[in-house]
Amino acid sequence: MSAAASLPGGVRAMAEAAKRASRVLAGLDEGKRNAALEAMAQALEAASAELLAANLEDVRAEGERLSPATLARLKLDDAKLAEMAEQVRSVGRLADPLGRVLDAMELDEGLGLTKISVPLGVLAVIFEARPDAVTQIAALAIKSGNAVLLKAGREVEGTAGVLVRVLREALVCQGLPADAVSLVVGRERVQELLGMHGLVDLVIPRGSKELVEYVQANTRIPVLGHAEGVCHIYVDESADEAVALRVIEDAKTDYPAACNAVETVLVHRAIAAEFLPKLAERLRAKGVRVHGDATVRELLRGVEVEAVGEWHTEYGELAVSLGVVAGVEEAMEHIHAHGSAHTESIIAGDTETAERFLREVDAASVMHNASTRFADGFRYGFGAEVGISTSKLHARGPVGLEGLTTYKYVLRGHGQVAGDYRASKETGEPARAFTHRREAR
Amino acid sequence: MSAAASLPGGVRAMAEAAKRASRVLAGLDEGKRNAALEAMAQALEAASAELLAANLEDVRAEGERLSPATLARLKLDDAKLAEMAEQVRSVGRLADPLGRVLDAMELDEGLGLTKISVPLGVLAVIFEARPDAVTQIAALAIKSGNAVLLKAGREVEGTAGVLVRVLREALVCQGLPADAVSLVVGRERVQELLGMHGLVDLVIPRGSKELVEYVQANTRIPVLGHAEGVCHIYVDESADEAVALRVIEDAKTDYPAACNAVETVLVHRAIAAEFLPKLAERLRAKGVRVHGDATVRELLRGVEVEAVGEWHTEYGELAVSLGVVAGVEEAMEHIHAHGSAHTESIIAGDTETAERFLREVDAASVMHNASTRFADGFRYGFGAEVGISTSKLHARGPVGLEGLTTYKYVLRGHGQVAGDYRASKETGEPARAFTHRREAR
Repeated sequence: MSAAASLPGGVRAMAEAAKRASRVLAGLDEGKRNAALEAMAQALEAASAELLAANLEDVRAEGERLSPATLARLKLDDAKLAEMAEQVRSVGRLADPLGRVLDAMELDEGLGLTKISVPLGVLAVIFEARPDAVTQIAALAIKSGNAVLLKAGREVEGTAGVLVRVLREALVCQGLPADAVSLVVGRERVQELLGMHGLVDLVIPRGSKELVEYVQANTRIPVLGHAEGVCHIYVDESADEAVALRVIEDAKTDYPAACNAVETVLVHRAIAAEFLPKLAERLRAKGVRVHGDATVRELLRGVEVEAVGEWHTEYGELAVSLGVVAGVEEAMEHIHAHGSAHTESIIAGDTETAERFLREVDAASVMHNASTRFADGFRYGFGAEVGISTSKLHARGPVGLEGLTTYKYVLRGHGQVAGDYRASKETGEPARAFTHRREAR
Repeated sequence: MSAAASLPGGVRAMAEAAKRASRVLAGLDEGKRNAALEAMAQALEAASAELLAANLEDVRAEGERLSPATLARLKLDDAKLAEMAEQVRSVGRLADPLGRVLDAMELDEGLGLTKISVPLGVLAVIFEARPDAVTQIAALAIKSGNAVLLKAGREVEGTAGVLVRVLREALVCQGLPADAVSLVVGRERVQELLGMHGLVDLVIPRGSKELVEYVQANTRIPVLGHAEGVCHIYVDESADEAVALRVIEDAKTDYPAACNAVETVLVHRAIAAEFLPKLAERLRAKGVRVHGDATVRELLRGVEVEAVGEWHTEYGELAVSLGVVAGVEEAMEHIHAHGSAHTESIIAGDTETAERFLREVDAASVMHNASTRFADGFRYGFGAEVGISTSKLHARGPVGLEGLTTYKYVLRGHGQVAGDYRASKETGEPARAFTHRREAR
C-alpha cells in the first residue's frame, strides 16, 4: 500500500483499490474509525508548514484568474488549518452511523431478521476550490466506513495533493488502507470517474449549479445533490404581518447566496394592497431589488419594481420575485409549477390552511411560520451536513451522515428452509407458519 | 377526466396528467385510499365477462408464438380473476405507509421538526405477459398514494386495456382522478417513457434480466429492480452436515427459477473430501446437474461433474456450481468477486466465523444457517413485495410498500428566523441557541 496521493493506472485502478479498501473499512468498529480520525487531525497539524507552502504555490499559480471570493476560499492560514483539524475531530464525536438496528423481526422461533445500517462502499466527491472540502469529506467518509475518491478543482490541486498524502499516511499508521482516500487529478478524468458505476456507489458534486447538472446528466451512478433552490414563501390572508415581514427579511437577506434563501414571495390577494408596500419598504431598506407581476407593480406604483422575467429563477443575491395569488390553492399550484421542491414556507395564522399547505406541497422541506433558511443539516440537528438533496430517492432535503449509509438484512437461523413454510401437497397445510413478530428496538 | 384507458397526446401528456393526479392522491387520507381499493376490487368482479373475452382475444392472437409457461401466465379464468380482486383487497388491509413519523426533533422551544413518509409521486412499471401485474401494481400504487403509468407487454395489451379502463372507472366513481392509473401502449413508447425524468419518480421493470438491464442502461429515472441473483452458500468446516445438506437442497430445488435460489456452493477445504460426495448424492437425487472446479472434480471422481464455465452464472434451473475454498476469507473474496450482492448464506457451527461473514459480506441479505430462499418480501413479513433491489440506494433487498414512499421534513414555528441563532457581531453570542432535543416517537 503506497501512501502516494494518487495511483498509476487510471481511474479504474483507483476505483478498484478504493473498493478493496472499503471492504476493510466496513469491518472496522467505531473505536478504530474514530482513532483514525484523531490520527488524521494530528497529521494535519504536524504538516502545517508543508501545507501552507503548497497552498501558496496554488495561490501564486491561479490567484490572478480567480475572483476575490474564490481566492479567499482557496487560501490557507494557521487559523484555517487549525479549524480543519478541529472539524475532523468533531466528526469523530458524532454518533456512529453504522450498525444501527433499523428494524428487527422474528420470522419464526429461532429465525431472526434484523435490518442494520452499513456503509455505501465507495464515494466520489467532485468539488471546486476549497481545501477544507478535502478534510471534511475524508472525515465524513472514514466515520461512515466508506472509501472516497476526491476530484478537486484545478486551482486547489497542489494543496489537495499534499492534504491527501498526509491523510493517507495517517491512515496507514493506524493500520488502515491508504486507498480509503484518493485524489483523482486532471479535469479530463472527471468523465472517466463518472463512468465507474459498479465500483462507485454515490457521487456527490459540490459546487456550481453547472457542475451539479453536468454530473447528473453524465453518469449512471446515483447523484446526491441539488442543482438549485427556488424557494417560496406564501403569505396567507390569515398571516401575522410582523411575522411575515420578519421571516421574509431573514429568508432573503440572512445569506442570499444559500440554496435555502427565498426567491419568490406569493401574497394573498385579500391583503396584498396593505402588505406589499410594507414588504417593499422593508426589503428596500436591506438593499433587496424587487421584481413583481402586473398586480404587484400596479399595487406598488411609485416604488421601483422590475418585471418578473421567469418565475423559476434562483437570484442567489439581494433580489426577489413578488406575486399575488387568490389563495393557498393557487400558491401551491405556482410552487409546483415553478419551484425546485427544495424548501417552501407558509406564513399563516389559520392552522387549517397551514396544515393543508404542509400536507400537499411536494418539497423536501415544508414550513409554517418559519424561515426557509432553517433547511440545513446543522440547524436540523444532524451534526454534519453531507449535502442537500432535491432528489426523492435515498436521501431528500438536508443530508447527514446517514446519507452515506445503506442497510442490509441479516437473517440468523438454525437450519430453517423455505420448503417448511410451503403448503404440503397432501394436507394443504405448511409444516410451519411464520410468526412475523416485530421485535422491540 | 376521461375514463378511457390511455390519453391522446403521447407519453409526456400522460405523465403530466399522472403528475397532476399524484398531487390529489398525496392529499387523501387512508380511508379514501382504501375505499378506492375496495371499489377497484368490486369493479373487477363486475367486469369479469368483459375481461375474460378480452383475454381470450389476446390468447388467440398471441398464443401460438408464446411458450406454454408464458401462455399459462397470460390466461385468465374465473378463479384467477377472483384471486386478483382478493389481492387488491389484501393490499387495502396493509398498514398505511404514508404519514408515518420517521423522526421528530425540537430545534428550539416552539420550533418542531418532523420527518414524515410521503408518496414518491409517479411510478412507471414495465412488465411482460401477466394480467395480474396490472391489478397488483395499481393496488400498491393507490395504497401508497402514487399515480402509475403501466406499460404492458404486447401479448397482454388487450386484457390490460380493459383492466385499466375498469380500474379508472372505479377511481372516478370514488371521486379520484382517473389518471392515477394509465396504460402506455406500444413497444415504441418504452423509450419515450424512460425519458420522463422530472415527471416519473421511479421506474420498476418486472420481467427478464434483459428487460431490467435495458431499462437500467436507458434512463435517468431511478430504477428499482435487480438484473440477476447469483447467490452463494458457504459451508464452513464447523458446519453441521445435516443442516448444510438440508439448506443447500432447499435453496437450489425449492424454486430454481427464483432470483434467491442458490447458484454456487463453496465448501471449506478441510471437510470437502467427506462432504462433497454426500452433497453430490443429495443433489443428484433431486435431478440437479453439478458443475465443479478442478478440486471438486478430483474429489468427486466417478460422479458426473461438468466444469464450471463462469462463476458469475445464474442457472435459474436445476444446476449448481461447486467450489472448494481455504476458509471464510477466501469464500468472501469469491462472493465479492463473482456474486451479485443479492443473498449470501453461511452454514457454520462456529458463531465467530458466522458473525464475521454476516458483518463483512456486502450483500442485500446475509444469512447464517438459513436458506437463501427466505430473501423475499412476504417471508420477511412486509405483507407485499414491490420488488427486490440489488442497488444500494433508496431500497435494498426485498422491497415492501415503504419502497414506494419518500419523506419530507415538516417544520412548524411561530415566526422564528435563522438570524436569531447567529452569533451577534457585538457580543459574539447568538440571541438564541438550538436545543436539538429528539422527541420520543
